[in-house]
Amino acid sequence: MYSLTKDGSLSNFISNTKRQQVQQALPTSDCFPLNHLNTAESGCENSSKPEKQEVRENNSHTDFFKMRSTVSFYVCFLLSLCLGLACVVCVCVWNSHWRGGFAWDGSSLQFNWHPVLMVTGLVVLYGNGAVLYRVPLTWGQNKLPWKLLHATLMFLALILAIVGLCAVFDFHNAKGIANLYSLHSWIGIAATALFAFQWVVGMAGFLLPYSPESFRKLLKPIHVWMGAGIMTLSIAACISGINEKLFFVLTKDQPYTKLGPEAVLGNLLGVLIVAFGLVVLKMLSDHRWQRPDSRPEDIDYTPVLQEENE
Amino acid sequence: MYSLTKDGSLSNFISNTKRQQVQQALPTSDCFPLNHLNTAESGCENSSKPEKQEVRENNSHTDFFKMRSTVSFYVCFLLSLCLGLACVVCVCVWNSHWRGGFAWDGSSLQFNWHPVLMVTGLVVLYGNGAVLYRVPLTWGQNKLPWKLLHATLMFLALILAIVGLCAVFDFHNAKGIANLYSLHSWIGIAATALFAFQWVVGMAGFLLPYSPESFRKLLKPIHVWMGAGIMTLSIAACISGINEKLFFVLTKDQPYTKLGPEAVLGNLLGVLIVAFGLVVLKMLSDHRWQRPDSRPEDIDYTPVLQEENE
Repeated sequence: MYSLTKDGSLSNFISNTKRQQVQQALPTSDCFPLNHLNTAESGCENSSKPEKQEVRENNSHTDFFKMRSTVSFYVCFLLSLCLGLACVVCVCVWNSHWRGGFAWDGSSLQFNWHPVLMVTGLVVLYGNGAVLYRVPLTWGQNKLPWKLLHATLMFLALILAIVGLCAVFDFHNAKGIANLYSLHSWIGIAATALFAFQWVVGMAGFLLPYSPESFRKLLKPIHVWMGAGIMTLSIAACISGINEKLFFVLTKDQPYTKLGPEAVLGNLLGVLIVAFGLVVLKMLSDHRWQRPDSRPEDIDYTPVLQEENE
Repeated sequence: MYSLTKDGSLSNFISNTKRQQVQQALPTSDCFPLNHLNTAESGCENSSKPEKQEVRENNSHTDFFKMRSTVSFYVCFLLSLCLGLACVVCVCVWNSHWRGGFAWDGSSLQFNWHPVLMVTGLVVLYGNGAVLYRVPLTWGQNKLPWKLLHATLMFLALILAIVGLCAVFDFHNAKGIANLYSLHSWIGIAATALFAFQWVVGMAGFLLPYSPESFRKLLKPIHVWMGAGIMTLSIAACISGINEKLFFVLTKDQPYTKLGPEAVLGNLLGVLIVAFGLVVLKMLSDHRWQRPDSRPEDIDYTPVLQEENE
């Protein structure tokens, strides 16, 4: 048994490990373009037949795991799309049907934009934008268009969240209500501020061409962790906000304690947001679903600019 | 360049990858017991001097990354311990000094046990129990004692959470308040129920000796994901609970909107819980800090029972 490659180079060993990871992680159909590397560069032309047989068996074993991983990713992805859509429908129905609809006049109808825009922007659009690189379909392709799409989706999510904050600030100011005193508002504003910071730093670090490679290498894991952290903050802010709103509005005839239709709808929205968040966090954290060239064990890190040119 | 090992076996290649990962991931001092494998089994006795030189350079490069990873883990671990302690102190001070202290008599003093026990059990003890396997100090050792400690810490956390739920149910029943109507209660009860389920299934799957290997292989990633999911639910439940409580109790002379000392303390508790949760989720999700024999790319998965006997 040998832990080093035939030419004794650990760096070559790592490069081979990386190529194998790309091949193992890619859906079966996407593997073919790389297959020639395995036969042309592996040096196994001189291997004996039983060894080839063993390699074939191991390859079919790996193919099985690869396929199972891809299928389970798409199940999660589909689930996140459905849950995200259900969240948006639910928050729109709640605010249009049960809370009187929308306006931009300083009334409570202006407040109604707040939950709709925060859930749509800071949860659903944000979550779907975050998992974009995990889609195996994008792995064999140039990263740049996907990076631009990721940045665009996140920008739209940020704009929705900022307009959602404007809605509640305007409403508070019109009614003489204090801003930013509750724990909900502290967590919500922290989530949005971190999101804006993350977007600007991500843009500067990963899209601008003159960002130094060392900065990108340092930034990548922090960007990924902060992305999941912002999602967690958004979930906590949404749950506390929905809970607070239902306590405020469900009082006299239909108290929250009676669990009437609006209370059930509001609670259901909270449950859907949590379920969506958990599926997104699963997709972000599962190592098998990371874009192969972004995995932390790739010690011979490929700079993003280089990736773009590939 | 060769992507296969000299004997042409992919499984041996994977075993060697695994051994290298253990060596690369372990803190420097823990690597020595495995070093003989590298020299005795790597087949590099016949390598030429320049190749040996290159390997040495690559090893020192790897050592640097390994050490940096270990140091950053312990910084996070220390931070989580400090934040956890701060959460417990904060929730105790809030309920003893500002909410009148503790009793078990159906009064609001009984309710005060609820935040204290939930934060201590479902957040702080749970979070510290969850990251136990990430501590590099434990990697070179037999897994069984750490597994028992993990199960014991989680059991204590579960007991605290259940007593915390009893406190609020008793209080509600004594005062004639409905149970389980708010979104906070739905998320909180879901977190505790999932935690109890997770503990029982984890016990049956990973500690009982007759659990089939296939079940353990299937259970492991689900157990890890559910662990992080329960942490996320706990954070959301705590934030919504603290927010709700502060709106309930801070009304007349000291309204919540004025952000008096109790409001600031309550909000600060929420911020500390979120910070603790984010550090714990970081430690759980960072691939570098996973126990090397538990990493998902170890395709030749070692059954847990076997690990125990090693």
